[in-house]
Amino acid sequence: MTLKLYYAPGACSFVPHSMLELAGATFEPASIKLHKGEQYGDEYKALNPRSQVPVLVDGDEVITQIVAIINYIDAKFPEAGFIPKEPLARARFMEALAWMNNTVHPTFTHIFMPQKFSDNEGAQAEMKRFGVDSYRKLMAELQAMVVRARAAGHDWLGGVHCGPLDAYALTLLRWGTIAGINPEDYPELWAHVQRTAQVPAIAKTMEREKLQLNLYKPA
Amino acid sequence: MTLKLYYAPGACSFVPHSMLELAGATFEPASIKLHKGEQYGDEYKALNPRSQVPVLVDGDEVITQIVAIINYIDAKFPEAGFIPKEPLARARFMEALAWMNNTVHPTFTHIFMPQKFSDNEGAQAEMKRFGVDSYRKLMAELQAMVVRARAAGHDWLGGVHCGPLDAYALTLLRWGTIAGINPEDYPELWAHVQRTAQVPAIAKTMEREKLQLNLYKPA
Repeated sequence: MTLKLYYAPGACSFVPHSMLELAGATFEPASIKLHKGEQYGDEYKALNPRSQVPVLVDGDEVITQIVAIINYIDAKFPEAGFIPKEPLARARFMEALAWMNNTVHPTFTHIFMPQKFSDNEGAQAEMKRFGVDSYRKLMAELQAMVVRARAAGHDWLGGVHCGPLDAYALTLLRWGTIAGINPEDYPELWAHVQRTAQVPAIAKTMEREKLQLNLYKPA
Repeated sequence: MTLKLYYAPGACSFVPHSMLELAGATFEPASIKLHKGEQYGDEYKALNPRSQVPVLVDGDEVITQIVAIINYIDAKFPEAGFIPKEPLARARFMEALAWMNNTVHPTFTHIFMPQKFSDNEGAQAEMKRFGVDSYRKLMAELQAMVVRARAAGHDWLGGVHCGPLDAYALTLLRWGTIAGINPEDYPELWAHVQRTAQVPAIAKTMEREKLQLNLYKPA
């Protein structure tokens, strides 16, 4: 049984990609170039008709949706301790993960791909502008989450181990820099993300995806 | 330890509300009137600063985010068999749940509360119009999910038991009827939702929330 992860450089697929490296898994990384439209090709759509990354293939099984993939990798590599076992700690983890996935992530989609929500150019520009303001508020909320974790004596957002919440926070703040947000406006979050990027398995994942952490350019 | 669920009639909180009834749990249901802005009151914001429903209170612990609450209720009432235990079946469940939560749900938000994405009235109208078209495609996808489940010999979306995915499908189709979509355009989905509504615990939940299943009015 071989594991294969389809990812797009810099997309949210960075999260399961990092998990597999953190777990020391043997897997085949397969890069999908979104800017070339590879996600709309017949081959990829046979895997995921929704044309999204990530996709995890385990033997004959194809798993989509980052929230499902994170849970699946956690169950497959229990020794990595990605998701706490105790029900309340697990709920806290899922709370943070669901919020990143259903709130922060789609807010960036309004900035980066407003055409998903309207075919009117004026409406797209309005959404983009409004989206950046919303995203700034969410970065502040994400920073508060980092501060609370540290205050509770946790080195990482999921507790003891660097894991999916930290990789997701890195991805989301990096997206913010693409949206014209200066990461230095969120010093505790920025410090956490820089620390995350230095974890060897995360650094290796960034290198494979050829990611620059900070793409902010002053206006 | 008492369980208390904060819900808003017809909102996605219908899902954990139904689960607690399906599990035969002892709990206190607390209705939050969104149209009166109760979610923005100090008392509610102390529970959930994001002013969203559902919120589950278990003793001293407050849990937000429907995806986290569903996992928590599942762990608390294992005998109800809400989420399959086997990793692959669990991944399939989480795949469907995550999609409902991060794709179908927010598409309806663009129709029902476009002010969350732009303060420009023209842009709001454009999003609303575009959102209804997107929602129709998602209802077709949801129907395909129902058809696949039945073809695999499952009575319910999660397998053997009527559970959160069925209650979520009911909620999402009901929202579609508010958006001007005729549920009869999706006969297999509509039949599944009507069957779900007849399950005694679900019927009881609908009665408490005073929900009408079909709010479609021909134009």
